[in-house]
Amino acid sequence: MADSFSFKLIAIDGTARRGEVVTPHGKVQTPAFMPVGTQATVKGLHPEAVAATGAEIVLGNTYHLMLRPTAERIAALGGLHKFMNWPRAILTDSGGFQVMSLSQLRKLTEQGVTFKSHLDGAMFELSPERSIEIQTLLGADITMQLDECLKLPASRDEIERAMQLSLRWGERSKRAFEGVRGGRALFGIVQGGDDVALRQQSARALVNTGFDGYAIGGLAVGEPQDVMLRIVEETAPVLPAEAPRYLMGVGTPHDMLEAVARGVDMFDCVMPTRNGRHGTAFTRFGSINLSNARHANDPRPLDEASPHPTARTYSRAYLHHLTKANEILGQVLLSTVNIAYYQTLMAGMREAIAMGEFANFRLATTAGWEQGDLPAL
Amino acid sequence: MADSFSFKLIAIDGTARRGEVVTPHGKVQTPAFMPVGTQATVKGLHPEAVAATGAEIVLGNTYHLMLRPTAERIAALGGLHKFMNWPRAILTDSGGFQVMSLSQLRKLTEQGVTFKSHLDGAMFELSPERSIEIQTLLGADITMQLDECLKLPASRDEIERAMQLSLRWGERSKRAFEGVRGGRALFGIVQGGDDVALRQQSARALVNTGFDGYAIGGLAVGEPQDVMLRIVEETAPVLPAEAPRYLMGVGTPHDMLEAVARGVDMFDCVMPTRNGRHGTAFTRFGSINLSNARHANDPRPLDEASPHPTARTYSRAYLHHLTKANEILGQVLLSTVNIAYYQTLMAGMREAIAMGEFANFRLATTAGWEQGDLPAL
Repeated sequence: MADSFSFKLIAIDGTARRGEVVTPHGKVQTPAFMPVGTQATVKGLHPEAVAATGAEIVLGNTYHLMLRPTAERIAALGGLHKFMNWPRAILTDSGGFQVMSLSQLRKLTEQGVTFKSHLDGAMFELSPERSIEIQTLLGADITMQLDECLKLPASRDEIERAMQLSLRWGERSKRAFEGVRGGRALFGIVQGGDDVALRQQSARALVNTGFDGYAIGGLAVGEPQDVMLRIVEETAPVLPAEAPRYLMGVGTPHDMLEAVARGVDMFDCVMPTRNGRHGTAFTRFGSINLSNARHANDPRPLDEASPHPTARTYSRAYLHHLTKANEILGQVLLSTVNIAYYQTLMAGMREAIAMGEFANFRLATTAGWEQGDLPAL
Repeated sequence: MADSFSFKLIAIDGTARRGEVVTPHGKVQTPAFMPVGTQATVKGLHPEAVAATGAEIVLGNTYHLMLRPTAERIAALGGLHKFMNWPRAILTDSGGFQVMSLSQLRKLTEQGVTFKSHLDGAMFELSPERSIEIQTLLGADITMQLDECLKLPASRDEIERAMQLSLRWGERSKRAFEGVRGGRALFGIVQGGDDVALRQQSARALVNTGFDGYAIGGLAVGEPQDVMLRIVEETAPVLPAEAPRYLMGVGTPHDMLEAVARGVDMFDCVMPTRNGRHGTAFTRFGSINLSNARHANDPRPLDEASPHPTARTYSRAYLHHLTKANEILGQVLLSTVNIAYYQTLMAGMREAIAMGEFANFRLATTAGWEQGDLPAL
């Protein structure tokens, strides 16, 4: 193991933060976007291609990996970094979110959650302690506490009950983590639905327990963007300035720009890969649907000024053709373009914050998206 | 355009040949394997990855490309090389084989074939002249004559009728090609089913017409390997030594080894990519089914002595996991491994022929396949 986990703030511009996370598998410049490697692969991309986009950290899904190939098997094979040939940092989630969204026959108790695998119906148990154990077997650089992710809308009583349970699970997670820390980090997760008071209560309690970083969970689950941003805006100030803040499962480029403006440091989302597999490219002109016939004869690349070769090399006509023909290469190229754009956006925000130019960057970037795509040929 | 098409023999060992094809898009060392780029992409591979396996030429499918995105569109976009970002040589087939195997409502006349697209039911016509026109629009370095591909078994009368029609189409193809040659090549195609006398008659007539190279078509369509090899063995000597010989649609590594032993110079086959997408790896130990549970805990790469990094880098356990999880990356990695192995096999044959060691190479290579995989852990 290399360095132990740490975080330092490099610059602040308004409430936007430029920082650096140090992990046993290298440094992560923040604001950072973490591509999602659900089943030990960022869908469709060689690990070298993920690194070439500038990504310094990826996310692994505990739920998927505990079912297949299992954490014990990955540990026996040398850990997740080695298994997926990714030498940089890895954050793993706790499994809680997918247990709620993918599994069947869930039974939730104070102790944890029992569920049926969506793959083969086998029964599994996940508790705060077992989640820490699994994430430690995987070798995550950043470990997440188990929490209960409610579906919204829910009653205030129900939101409060889940938030309080998540706090108790956070404390148990911390106790379980102390013995296995080994230079790695544990993040707590703020819950509280769309209720600002509950969110702030959750955040204060987590800070009181004390974690290496703080996530805001249970958002980007269908609520309007302004609700999400209001929760972020009211929650971030309660979190300590000296710890990283991670907004889970977010989001669109615009979501991330606005969340950084409100003090968030880290993001993950399946959108760049999922939408790429379905023919959508994210660019500085906004999102572009390559299956649209207007691209069929267009020899121009997606963005000739992109710092990433994939966006500069292949014509829109070719990407349109691959998308219409449902070719794997189309899915691969657009996933690559999208993760690269997300990284370019993050790099732009980092540079702007460092120069005290974030407000201008935010305006110019939003204007680029609103301007829309290149004029049709 | 660079150099005009030419072929030279560099060495002969028994009846095995080591040669070099020169095309307007670079040289091709023979024996050569051409990965199949059906829809303007070798399925799942970046063009740079195809080149990194050592491939110097790929095959494009006229049938698929004439339907979508159309040859006219590709020509307007600068030709197939530019469209698919592949700067090396391209051979296009005539479209005849897929018309017979994929399209509906075919009507075959002396003039050509009318058929219904398998994509949208639109009606198309393909004649020898139209096939040359399409391949010229695509910008193929090597153009194939239109032929009639029968399904075997067929009666001798039917085989002879199709063979004679293919000869007349060959003559028309040559006349159509003369005006558009531009340094490129036209290959004739030997037909005649499983009848040696008809095959030799077809070959003699083609040689009399005169082509830049000669293909043996209508094989690898379900007949036993010994039938295919007998046809190759009896046909090759009728073809001129100074022109390249291309066995279409072949095949397994063993098929290719045995066909090279009988004087064949060029091959194409979807097997490395198609089988790769379904979890099979080709290696010097034979073919390996990665979905087999015996690989689940195996940290070893497919072949640590492979000259290609993909076969050396990823563990069998990881490839097993990706295959079971139906991840795109598994399809991509195994397709890459397989095309790389095909290229390694070709390079080995070329070296062995040049050194007069082909017989030993053939024995040793076959013994490797028969030895089977590494012992299980």
